[in-house]
Amino acid sequence: MNPNQPPALSKLCIHTITTKPWRIEEAAKNFASAGVKGITVWRDALEGRDIKQTGQLLRDYDLTIVSLCRGGFFPSREASKRKTAIDDNRRAIDEAAELGTSMIVLVCGADPYQSLEDSRKQIRDGIAAILADAQAAGIKLAIEPLHPMYADTRSAINTLAQANEMAEELNSPLVGVVVDVYHLWWDPLLENEIKRCGENGHLMAFHICDWKIPTTDLLLDRGLMGEGCIPVKKIRSWVEATGFNGFNEVEIFSTAYWKEDQADYLQKIIRAYKEHS
Amino acid sequence: MNPNQPPALSKLCIHTITTKPWRIEEAAKNFASAGVKGITVWRDALEGRDIKQTGQLLRDYDLTIVSLCRGGFFPSREASKRKTAIDDNRRAIDEAAELGTSMIVLVCGADPYQSLEDSRKQIRDGIAAILADAQAAGIKLAIEPLHPMYADTRSAINTLAQANEMAEELNSPLVGVVVDVYHLWWDPLLENEIKRCGENGHLMAFHICDWKIPTTDLLLDRGLMGEGCIPVKKIRSWVEATGFNGFNEVEIFSTAYWKEDQADYLQKIIRAYKEHS
Repeated sequence: MNPNQPPALSKLCIHTITTKPWRIEEAAKNFASAGVKGITVWRDALEGRDIKQTGQLLRDYDLTIVSLCRGGFFPSREASKRKTAIDDNRRAIDEAAELGTSMIVLVCGADPYQSLEDSRKQIRDGIAAILADAQAAGIKLAIEPLHPMYADTRSAINTLAQANEMAEELNSPLVGVVVDVYHLWWDPLLENEIKRCGENGHLMAFHICDWKIPTTDLLLDRGLMGEGCIPVKKIRSWVEATGFNGFNEVEIFSTAYWKEDQADYLQKIIRAYKEHS
Repeated sequence: MNPNQPPALSKLCIHTITTKPWRIEEAAKNFASAGVKGITVWRDALEGRDIKQTGQLLRDYDLTIVSLCRGGFFPSREASKRKTAIDDNRRAIDEAAELGTSMIVLVCGADPYQSLEDSRKQIRDGIAAILADAQAAGIKLAIEPLHPMYADTRSAINTLAQANEMAEELNSPLVGVVVDVYHLWWDPLLENEIKRCGENGHLMAFHICDWKIPTTDLLLDRGLMGEGCIPVKKIRSWVEATGFNGFNEVEIFSTAYWKEDQADYLQKIIRAYKEHS
């Protein structure tokens, strides 16, 4: 809870997308060698693999599989596409169960050719539609509010207040929220909304990275902690003040870092984690 | 107030930056020929000119000079830079008076090397410092909340709620807010916050354009109304429901449109204004 105290290495989780050039088998081996204890698996990393065996491989490396990324993308003007999305989310629940993780991150989606209000309603209906499946499989569904610059096509849920409201409305122990500093750092209500989901038992995951100055791409120019202007330590202190004791998950999309030697980059991630998180 | 009713051409204002390749003299002549009645002048358009004469030229074309863009950029860790900013805002007030407009748009600024809270305090202090000058000159100061993707360096005021709070705190008939659809369309609280500034008498300006799908640049890829996903008509109906009777100001930064023939582009602006605003 002291923002000046470095976070424990044992609480570091890295998303497979962060070191995208590595196959998941390489990522797991290298994360484990470096003392990383958590991994969040993006679904593209599982392509062409036996999911159960891959989950076992990760556990053999003593990695906790923090979550599967990602479900969601519920909204569409077209009913057939909404149904396809619900089917895909059911598959994601099956995959999460096979992999042996207890949580799916939801990037909720938005259809720019309808109102944000309609997209939000379809998100709520979509989550409600898969809730029984999630319960049967014991998989948590974590709503990730995305930065307002993604309100066109990626998510109509753009503040933690909105995610909190939706989780409260769905009112299930399996539905909660993700706090990602990249998406939420600018929000003047952030500290209060973190308290709110903490008190509700809805705070399920914490994602970190940094906002570079300048940021040159809307999607693929995230920075390492300490490279930008996000007060990561302060936000972590708010998250931990709620009693959150989960992983600090490094999720970085960066064409620049993906071009680097990934072993060197992994060392940079660990240093940035210790010094600036 | 009926969003299906096209806005009056007599309420169309265009920012000089929108047709950046044109010198202000050309812009004024072409706007006037096309029946446009309002112009908002960016300070760069006045460089090397006698400001009073330029103001007279615009009035001779029967153009209302809606505002001067832009003052602001108050925050800095360094006191000397904050003082420089205040001096520059005083110059902007003088320029506005010489030009013959009654309003300055404030892009408030942010220093990424200090907290957003500190930047916000310095914005409030900066506006308070120039308020006597604004009063003496009879110039209104309109706080423009900027999209959260600009919270690093351009503005620590990122929602209309924040701008409304600051205007209420400063509590002067000369301090109000700008509603720009590009910055605010995603906000679930927008309709209520527009009502709030309307009731307060703080709604001073309304800027329009569109959010392209996809948007390829964080700054210079704005679209014409109708090209993207912003519900411009709906937001205009909220603005007009407050009794707002000012101009609809087209403010577009676009490297793509700046490459086009500007006379053709002006016709596109007018068509987009009539059909999609």
